[in-house]
Amino acid sequence: MSKPELAKLGYVALVTPDIEKSLWFFKEVIGLEETEEVDGVHYLRAWGDFGHHSLSIEKGESGYVKHVGWRTKNPKDVLAFKTALEHEGVKVQHVEAGTTRGIGEAIRFQLPSGHSFELYYDVDKPEVAEHRRSVLKNQTYKSWAKGVSPRRFDHVNIHASENIKETYNFLLEQLGFKMREYLVDDDGNTIAGWMSVTPLVHDVAFIAKPSLPTKARLHHLSYWSDDTQDILRAADILKENGIQFIGPGKHGVSQAIYLYVMDPGSGARVELFTGGYLIFEPDWEPIEWTMEERSLSNTYWGDSVQDKELNNITIEAK
Amino acid sequence: MSKPELAKLGYVALVTPDIEKSLWFFKEVIGLEETEEVDGVHYLRAWGDFGHHSLSIEKGESGYVKHVGWRTKNPKDVLAFKTALEHEGVKVQHVEAGTTRGIGEAIRFQLPSGHSFELYYDVDKPEVAEHRRSVLKNQTYKSWAKGVSPRRFDHVNIHASENIKETYNFLLEQLGFKMREYLVDDDGNTIAGWMSVTPLVHDVAFIAKPSLPTKARLHHLSYWSDDTQDILRAADILKENGIQFIGPGKHGVSQAIYLYVMDPGSGARVELFTGGYLIFEPDWEPIEWTMEERSLSNTYWGDSVQDKELNNITIEAK
Amino acid sequence: MSKPELAKLGYVALVTPDIEKSLWFFKEVIGLEETEEVDGVHYLRAWGDFGHHSLSIEKGESGYVKHVGWRTKNPKDVLAFKTALEHEGVKVQHVEAGTTRGIGEAIRFQLPSGHSFELYYDVDKPEVAEHRRSVLKNQTYKSWAKGVSPRRFDHVNIHASENIKETYNFLLEQLGFKMREYLVDDDGNTIAGWMSVTPLVHDVAFIAKPSLPTKARLHHLSYWSDDTQDILRAADILKENGIQFIGPGKHGVSQAIYLYVMDPGSGARVELFTGGYLIFEPDWEPIEWTMEERSLSNTYWGDSVQDKELNNITIEAK
Amino acid sequence: MSKPELAKLGYVALVTPDIEKSLWFFKEVIGLEETEEVDGVHYLRAWGDFGHHSLSIEKGESGYVKHVGWRTKNPKDVLAFKTALEHEGVKVQHVEAGTTRGIGEAIRFQLPSGHSFELYYDVDKPEVAEHRRSVLKNQTYKSWAKGVSPRRFDHVNIHASENIKETYNFLLEQLGFKMREYLVDDDGNTIAGWMSVTPLVHDVAFIAKPSLPTKARLHHLSYWSDDTQDILRAADILKENGIQFIGPGKHGVSQAIYLYVMDPGSGARVELFTGGYLIFEPDWEPIEWTMEERSLSNTYWGDSVQDKELNNITIEAK
Repeated sequence: MSKPELAKLGYVALVTPDIEKSLWFFKEVIGLEETEEVDGVHYLRAWGDFGHHSLSIEKGESGYVKHVGWRTKNPKDVLAFKTALEHEGVKVQHVEAGTTRGIGEAIRFQLPSGHSFELYYDVDKPEVAEHRRSVLKNQTYKSWAKGVSPRRFDHVNIHASENIKETYNFLLEQLGFKMREYLVDDDGNTIAGWMSVTPLVHDVAFIAKPSLPTKARLHHLSYWSDDTQDILRAADILKENGIQFIGPGKHGVSQAIYLYVMDPGSGARVELFTGGYLIFEPDWEPIEWTMEERSLSNTYWGDSVQDKELNNITIEAK
Repeated sequence: MSKPELAKLGYVALVTPDIEKSLWFFKEVIGLEETEEVDGVHYLRAWGDFGHHSLSIEKGESGYVKHVGWRTKNPKDVLAFKTALEHEGVKVQHVEAGTTRGIGEAIRFQLPSGHSFELYYDVDKPEVAEHRRSVLKNQTYKSWAKGVSPRRFDHVNIHASENIKETYNFLLEQLGFKMREYLVDDDGNTIAGWMSVTPLVHDVAFIAKPSLPTKARLHHLSYWSDDTQDILRAADILKENGIQFIGPGKHGVSQAIYLYVMDPGSGARVELFTGGYLIFEPDWEPIEWTMEERSLSNTYWGDSVQDKELNNITIEAK
Repeated sequence: MSKPELAKLGYVALVTPDIEKSLWFFKEVIGLEETEEVDGVHYLRAWGDFGHHSLSIEKGESGYVKHVGWRTKNPKDVLAFKTALEHEGVKVQHVEAGTTRGIGEAIRFQLPSGHSFELYYDVDKPEVAEHRRSVLKNQTYKSWAKGVSPRRFDHVNIHASENIKETYNFLLEQLGFKMREYLVDDDGNTIAGWMSVTPLVHDVAFIAKPSLPTKARLHHLSYWSDDTQDILRAADILKENGIQFIGPGKHGVSQAIYLYVMDPGSGARVELFTGGYLIFEPDWEPIEWTMEERSLSNTYWGDSVQDKELNNITIEAK
Repeated sequence: MSKPELAKLGYVALVTPDIEKSLWFFKEVIGLEETEEVDGVHYLRAWGDFGHHSLSIEKGESGYVKHVGWRTKNPKDVLAFKTALEHEGVKVQHVEAGTTRGIGEAIRFQLPSGHSFELYYDVDKPEVAEHRRSVLKNQTYKSWAKGVSPRRFDHVNIHASENIKETYNFLLEQLGFKMREYLVDDDGNTIAGWMSVTPLVHDVAFIAKPSLPTKARLHHLSYWSDDTQDILRAADILKENGIQFIGPGKHGVSQAIYLYVMDPGSGARVELFTGGYLIFEPDWEPIEWTMEERSLSNTYWGDSVQDKELNNITIEAK
C-alpha cells in the first residue's frame, strides 16, 4: 500500500481577543470574503480560494492558533495517516466531520514542536451569492471588491524553540514534505527550512528560535496576490488604515516579494506575497544558505526583515 | 506496481528555415539564454529554467516541431511508460541518452493526433558562466539581461484535425494528464482541453480544428513572466522590433494575461504569459465552457484572440 | 497688459437620464468621491483631485454635457478673457459666483464648434471628513477606497462636425492652447489635434467627424491612474460589473495606456489612462501624423480603438 | 517688461575619477543612451529625453558636479536673467554657445549656497541613428533597450551648510521657483524645500545640512520611470550587478516611489523615481511638514531613507 499524501495547505484556525477588530482587518483591510458565521466562528477565504475557508476566526482570551489544517490527496489518506502516525507513537485525535464547519472527517495531532495539525480530505465548496460570484466560471468571487484583495491562501510560517531536528524529520518523513531551501547554523544544524508538498517553494516554513514566549508559535500566515503592484497598493491601503507593517521587499529564499502586516485584533501576522518560483523538478536539490548568506536569504532587497523588533512578534500556536 | 507519471513539460525541439532570424528572435527579443550549441543545434532556456534547455533550435527546410519533451517523476518511469504504451499497441522508439544534448535515456512516440512526444528523466543542469550567473543561489541566470526576459517555460498548445477523442483519452489515460478546463461543441464533444500533470491549469492544451494544413500542428509554446507589467513592456519591445503580435488580453480559461508573438524565422508562435491560477485541489472538477461562452473563455478582455487571421497561424508538428 | 491664460482643465458638467445608474458607475465602479450634493447636483472628484469637483452630475432628459470648466492662471484672467473674447465678437455670458457649487465668478461661451466652455479662477477646497481624509498632507482622500480608484482628472476629448478650422484657431489663439500632436487628412487639413496649456500632451483633444448626431459632442472625459497595472485591474472590475469597454491598449499619440468605458447611465465615455509623456520643452514642435500612420497613432498596440462601433459612441455637448 | 522665466531642468555636468565605471553604470546599468562623445565628455540622455543630453560625464580628480543646467522659457530670458541677477549683485559669467556641446549661449552663476547653475535656451535635438530610433514619432529612442531604462530626467536634490535662507529666497525670487512642499525645524526655519517651475512637485530640492564635507553638495539626480514595477525590476538589476542601493519605498513628500543607487565611479547618487502627483493649481499652498512628521515625509513606507549612513553620502557641487 502506498504512503498517504498531503495535497495542500487548507486553513488556519485563529483565535482573537478582539473579534471586531480582527474581522475588520481580515474582511475590510485584507478584503477576505466571509463564507458563513456559525456559533461565533467566522469562516473566511480569498476571492480565488476554492474551498469552504482558508481562515477561521473566533473570540478567545488571547490571540493564538488552534491548529493548521491540511487536505490529503485521497479520501483514504486521512485514516491511513492516523494508522501510520499511531504506529510511530504519535497521539492522534479523531475529529467528526463537521466539527469544523465545511470540513469532513479529520485527525489532529501535534508536531514534536508542539504545533497542532489537522488532516482531512472532504471540504465543502459552498455556492457564492450571485451578486458576489465572479462572472468567470473558474473563479469563486468577484475580484477586487475591497481592500488588498489577495487571490488565495499561500503558506504558513511557524517557529519553535524545542525538538527542532525531530520536527524537521516529522515533517519530511511522516508528512511527506520536501525540503526546498534551508538555512544552516555554523554547526551545520538546519535552523530554518522551507518545505512543500506542492510546487510552491513552501507550504510551510519551520524556523528554530532559541527563546520564544511559548514553545510553539505562528510567525505568519500568507496570502498571495498576482502582481507586485498589488503589494505596493496594499502598502498604501495599510498606511491609510493606520496599520503597521514591514516591507515591501524581496526574499532571497523563494525570490518572493513580501509585506508583513499585523492583525491589530489577534496580533497574527499576515504576509502579503507575490512573485517567486515554482519547483517542478522531481530531483530538486534543496538550496542551502549559510549564516553568512543569511541577510541575502532574508532580504534580497527592500525593507529588511532582519533585526527588526516588529519581526520578532509571533503568536502562540497551541 | 504504481503507474508511471510525468513530472513536467521539458522542451520543444524546433526546426527553422531561418536560423539567424530565429536565434535573434529567441535570444535578443525574447531574451533566452543559450546553454550551448552542438552540431548546429542551439539549446536555449529562460533565466529561471533549471534544466539544460526548454527550447532547441536547428536549421531545416521549413518551420516545424520535431517533438515535445516531458520529464517523468522517477527514473524508472521512462521504461515503465514504454512497457505500458507498447501494451496498448503504441509504437515506441527507444532513444539513447545524449541523442538530444543534456537529455538522458528517452522514449519517443506519437499521440493519436500525430504529435511526437519524448519522455525522459535525466536532465543535465550545466553550470552557468560566472558573469551570467545569478547572485541568488536558487536562480539560474541574472534576470532582465536582455529583451522580454521571461522567467521560465510554461506550456504548449497543440492543434489537430483527426483522432480528437482518441487523443484526449490518450493524454488522460496513458499519460496521466488531468483535465482542468474544456470547451464543448453543441453536440457535447470536447473540442478544446486544458490539461496538466502539475498545479498549472495547463501544461498542454489540445485543440480540435476541422481543417489544418497538416494533421498535427503547434499553435504556440509559452514562456511565463512574473508580472502583467512585464507583458506590457514586452509589447513595447516587440513594436520597436517590428514584430507582429496579438494582445495583450486576459483569457477566461486559466485567467491568464497573454500576448501572442510570431518567431519571424520559423513561424512558431510564442505566448508571453502571466497571472492565472493554480489548482491544488485533489478533487478538481473540470470547468466546462460551451460554444456560447466561447468568446468569454478565449478573451475575458483585451485584444481578442478570436476570429483573427493571425490567430490561425500554426506550424507543423511532425 | 499680458494675455489672460488658462491654468488647467477643471470639470465636466454632465447630465444623465439615469442618475442612480450614473452615480453607481462613477462612485462605486470608477470610485470617485462625492464632495456634496446640492439641489440634485452631485459633485464628484478623484482621491487626488484638489478642487471642489472634477465632475458634476445631475438628472435630465438625456445624457449630455452642459459645459466644460477651466481654471485661469490668475483671478483677473476671467474678466480679461471676457473682454478679449467679446472683442473678437464672441458672445460671453457672465456667471455669478456659486452658480455652480464650489466655483467662483465665471464666464461661459461657445467654441465655433458649439461646445460650451466655462472659465473661472476661484475654486472651493472643502475639508474632507476625517475618516475619508488621507494620512498624507498632500493628498485629498485615502486612495484605493473603492472601485478603479483613479488619482485625478486628466483631459477631455470633444468631436465636432462643423467649423473645424475656426475651432482650432479659437483654441490656439483665443484660449492659448499649444498644439502638441495632430493628425492631417490627405489634403493637409488638421482633423484631430491634441492640445494643452499644461505639460500634459493634451488637456483637450478636438476631433473633426464629418457626420455626427449633433454638431458638438463629447467623445470622452479621462481620469488618470499611476500604474498600468491599475488599468488592467480596472478591466477586471469592469467585467465583474458587466460594463462594456474597449482596451487595454497603448496610443501612439501621447504614448498613453488606455481603457474606454461607458457610463451605463448617461452614455458618457470615460477613458482610464496612464503612462505617456510630459512636454517641458518651450520650443516643442507639434508631432504630425498622416492618414497612413493613423492606425499607429490611434493604437500603438492592444485592443484597437479604430473601426469599432463602440468607439463611435459620443454624447451631445450643448 | 515681464520677468524672465525658467522652463525646465536641463542637465547635470558630472565629473568622475573613474570614467569607465561611471559610463558602465550610466549606460549599461541605468541604460542611458550616448548622444555623442566630444573631447572626453560623454553626453547621455534617457530614451524619452528630447534635448541633446540630460547628463554629461567627464574624467577628473574626484567625483563632483560642475554645474546644473536649466532651460529658459524664451530665448531672450537668458540675457534678461543676466541683467536681473547682476542688478542684484550676483556675479554672472557669460558662456559662448557650444561651450557645452549641444547647448547655446548661456550664463553661469552661483547660488548663495555655492551651487553653480547654468541657464540657456537653445538646445540641439540631434537625430538618432535609425537602428536606435523609436518607431514612435514622439519618442526619441527605442525604449527598454538595456538596463533599468528610465524614461526621462526628472529632478536634482542639492544640500548646503550655509546661506540657507538666502538660497531659498534666491531660488524663489530670482529664479522664479514655486515652493511646493517644505520641512520646518522646531524654530520654524525651512530646512528642506521642494520647488518647481513645472507642475512636477520638484525640479529641485534644496536641503540644509549643518555639517557637510564641503559647503555645496549634490545629494542626487533623478530619472523617471513610468511604473512602480520598473523600479522593482531595477532593484533586481542592481543586485545582479552588485550595486548598493536604498529602497524601494514611497516618500510622503511628493508621494513618489524611490530607489537610491550610487554610481560606483563618481559616487553620485541617482534616484530612480515614479508615481507622485502633479500640481496644476495656480493657487497651490505649499505643504508644511514639521519635525515630528519628518519620518512620514521622508518615508511613507518601505526601506527607510532616514538614519542610514548610506543616505548621507553626497558629492561636491563646485
